[in-house]
Amino acid sequence: MRILIDKESNEPFYIQIFEQIRRQILSGELLPGYRLPPERKFAQSLGVNRSTILNAYRELKAEGLVGSRVGAGTVVLSDIQGDSDPQNEAQEPIWNQIFSQYSNGFDSFFVKELLTLASRKDVISFATGIAAPESGPIEAFEGIEQELLEKKDFRALFHTPTEGFTTLREALCGLMRRRGVYCRYEDVILLSGSQQGIDIISRVILDPGDIVVVEEPSFFPAIQAFKATGARVIGVPIDDKGMKIDVLEQLLHRYRPKLIYTMPTYQNPSGVDMGLERRRRIIELANTYKVLIMEDDAYGELCYEGHQLPILKSMDNNGYVIYLSTFSKNVYAGLRLGWMVAHKRIIKRVAAAKQIIDLHSSSLSQWIIERFITNGGLEAHMIKVCREYKLKRDVMLDALSKYAPSDLIWNTPKGGYYIWCKLPQGVSASELVSKAAERKVVFVPGTSFFTSDQGDDHIRLNFTYAPVKDIKPGISRLCEAIKDLAQNKVSSEAYIDMEINPIV
Amino acid sequence: MRILIDKESNEPFYIQIFEQIRRQILSGELLPGYRLPPERKFAQSLGVNRSTILNAYRELKAEGLVGSRVGAGTVVLSDIQGDSDPQNEAQEPIWNQIFSQYSNGFDSFFVKELLTLASRKDVISFATGIAAPESGPIEAFEGIEQELLEKKDFRALFHTPTEGFTTLREALCGLMRRRGVYCRYEDVILLSGSQQGIDIISRVILDPGDIVVVEEPSFFPAIQAFKATGARVIGVPIDDKGMKIDVLEQLLHRYRPKLIYTMPTYQNPSGVDMGLERRRRIIELANTYKVLIMEDDAYGELCYEGHQLPILKSMDNNGYVIYLSTFSKNVYAGLRLGWMVAHKRIIKRVAAAKQIIDLHSSSLSQWIIERFITNGGLEAHMIKVCREYKLKRDVMLDALSKYAPSDLIWNTPKGGYYIWCKLPQGVSASELVSKAAERKVVFVPGTSFFTSDQGDDHIRLNFTYAPVKDIKPGISRLCEAIKDLAQNKVSSEAYIDMEINPIV
Repeated sequence: MRILIDKESNEPFYIQIFEQIRRQILSGELLPGYRLPPERKFAQSLGVNRSTILNAYRELKAEGLVGSRVGAGTVVLSDIQGDSDPQNEAQEPIWNQIFSQYSNGFDSFFVKELLTLASRKDVISFATGIAAPESGPIEAFEGIEQELLEKKDFRALFHTPTEGFTTLREALCGLMRRRGVYCRYEDVILLSGSQQGIDIISRVILDPGDIVVVEEPSFFPAIQAFKATGARVIGVPIDDKGMKIDVLEQLLHRYRPKLIYTMPTYQNPSGVDMGLERRRRIIELANTYKVLIMEDDAYGELCYEGHQLPILKSMDNNGYVIYLSTFSKNVYAGLRLGWMVAHKRIIKRVAAAKQIIDLHSSSLSQWIIERFITNGGLEAHMIKVCREYKLKRDVMLDALSKYAPSDLIWNTPKGGYYIWCKLPQGVSASELVSKAAERKVVFVPGTSFFTSDQGDDHIRLNFTYAPVKDIKPGISRLCEAIKDLAQNKVSSEAYIDMEINPIV
Repeated sequence: MRILIDKESNEPFYIQIFEQIRRQILSGELLPGYRLPPERKFAQSLGVNRSTILNAYRELKAEGLVGSRVGAGTVVLSDIQGDSDPQNEAQEPIWNQIFSQYSNGFDSFFVKELLTLASRKDVISFATGIAAPESGPIEAFEGIEQELLEKKDFRALFHTPTEGFTTLREALCGLMRRRGVYCRYEDVILLSGSQQGIDIISRVILDPGDIVVVEEPSFFPAIQAFKATGARVIGVPIDDKGMKIDVLEQLLHRYRPKLIYTMPTYQNPSGVDMGLERRRRIIELANTYKVLIMEDDAYGELCYEGHQLPILKSMDNNGYVIYLSTFSKNVYAGLRLGWMVAHKRIIKRVAAAKQIIDLHSSSLSQWIIERFITNGGLEAHMIKVCREYKLKRDVMLDALSKYAPSDLIWNTPKGGYYIWCKLPQGVSASELVSKAAERKVVFVPGTSFFTSDQGDDHIRLNFTYAPVKDIKPGISRLCEAIKDLAQNKVSSEAYIDMEINPIV
């Protein structure tokens, strides 16, 4: 129903509205059973008084064109022949028959609510896995307006090939060389964030019933993407050297999975760096068992100490490793830009899928990133951001040393975004979420990173997002919440004991 | 394999390279069987002479660390124990076992090659479905750099909710009101182009074996997205009033499809505007048969003459219509931004899927579009662009009247992007593609728009992309190609007759 009010006209507004609706009913544009918008909402959207709408509706009723019905408001009545019963027509789709198996399988989105809480100004957030606002390379945008408006660089605004700008793919080959991979642009595709790479690979590789091996803990949305295809997901536990390779080999032998998903470098959520011997072994196992590896390397360049170990892709030349990386963790997540490096047979399939998924990634984002790589901005930015994040990591580690209860255990990640903490015995991460929220500090509970019902004894702390000055008070409040809960735990356990004892 | 050359060092480059590779082999970073990069490529990527690489490889060979193998270049040899045979390890994945059913079902991408041809400067393109470069609202970018760099509007660069900025969703409700739909922001989700809406709805609604009804001809990538889920796609023919509703009703009755996909307004490829009576009927049928309608409205606001008929979504208040639209056809396709309006139950599922698909659409694109809507730029731009495209349409229609052979038939679309032509009897659209390419003019053959083996007697001409001055010569060349082919047809048929006669 389209209504236009002519504020210059002498005709009163209610007459204008009445006549337009009348015409639409008589012409059949408005069907019997159509509910007119509620008066208040309609008045707001047209910028008129509510009484104007009431008057227009009154006129329509007087002509027998509309009627009021309980629970449905003002409804267009049947035409003169009375051949259709509006009551019957006013029914919604049968919702429980509408949705696909795929969509019925979605898990709940606990993390989403956490992030809403995290965006409140008075809350200190160790929850989000995003870059620091003040560390963003805002200089990447310098000069873009001139280039767009004066030089009319329309390239940034039109379609790109599905795989992305060829010049950007070549620039990414340059980036990959510094990561030890010698590839050509045909081996590279741009993605709308690396999450898209996980989703497309799931669709292009996995059939229902296929098996995917993941680290446990692992990145939750990846697990969801695998499960959504109908695949089975099996976890391999990690220790301080990464995925336990002996367990992996047993699983490969027994289940013959189709894909191994791993974040070998500064893993999310654990921050663990997979050891060199395990990196060798996992490549050997891929060759032996002919299984693909998806290497998710969102954090690898954020190295704060020690020697950067070779990425898996740099150790593979038979095409088993599908490499994913992103500009979300070092430039801006809002640009939604990541990339994949893989055997060109895989790139070809991924491109065919991407063509019906979103055609191509934002040309504007691609253009901005390409400028930033080729003018040397990214390289300079990485040095700066590593220095800043190392400082933040150290501030958080110091604060933990100072405030943590003696039975809180944490690791010292050599890079990336996260510190992984084991809570004192009896303290539940899920309960700690609300306790900490009361003290205005948020984090992600370990349960979000497991395929099974585990992780309630761990929490993930992000150290990159919060301003330096907030880290110490945030950790202090968090530790108070842990101590509170540990104490209550003891007393409530004692209470339960008292309750149970009499029965036994 | 990561190699860094220190150009300041006294050590010769080949020694630096030799020592780094040697260390990586001995430490196990480079596995037995690893192929070193080919000398020429490696030299290029390091910025050294090829002889430098040859010398480094020679030293490695002298130490027994690498060897040459026919077809594989220079390969890292097994370690001393000789416990692994590099020959066995140098194998690629078993490609025919790698890919999913979904990905094996992709059709070929003829259109993609056409678009590559269309991008050549000397070719006049009536093929692409994109906006005119000179008509783009470049003013949408005015002031963005200042807002980003000075006001530091980080909103544009960080994560948004999966559904998009709430303020933009509200601005879209304003846009929808002018299209006759009174919705709230909860009914709206931003998409990375409307193609993403088609893909997500396919995944969220369709199970293998479900049936989707489409217009025939229809938008090819939509058909592909439906088929990729394992759904069956059935076509309903169209005439000058749109989808034949009596055929649709028979299909609804017999097959009980789950989804009807339609472009009622200025359809792609036919340019046809569905009549009001049929719009009424399709809504009634959706209610009667409880079937969802996906209304793809990419072109509806590009109206050049006559009265804009109500969009289906404006006639539906029971939640059967899923409405899709885009900024690709009126702003810039490279921003990859579209939106969906649907019942909030559907929006909720779509958002859950989008969260694992690409998390959210480009924040930067959303921010630019929101500015452009709220500062009134979009509304002004639409008036300008409709005037320009109407002119281009008329120039093309005039040129067709002037140059077309008498048996070429075309329609006069009241809006949108396309003129749909029926070729003279015996002229094949696929053959015309190469004939026209010789004369440096491209278009899309009708075969690209049918689910079955039809359409070779039609072509789609886009009139928005080519500059006005190119339209007349382009149509002239195209018509020459048609006439050529029509004549050759007759003579080559005559020739065949001659060949065949002696045998009979």
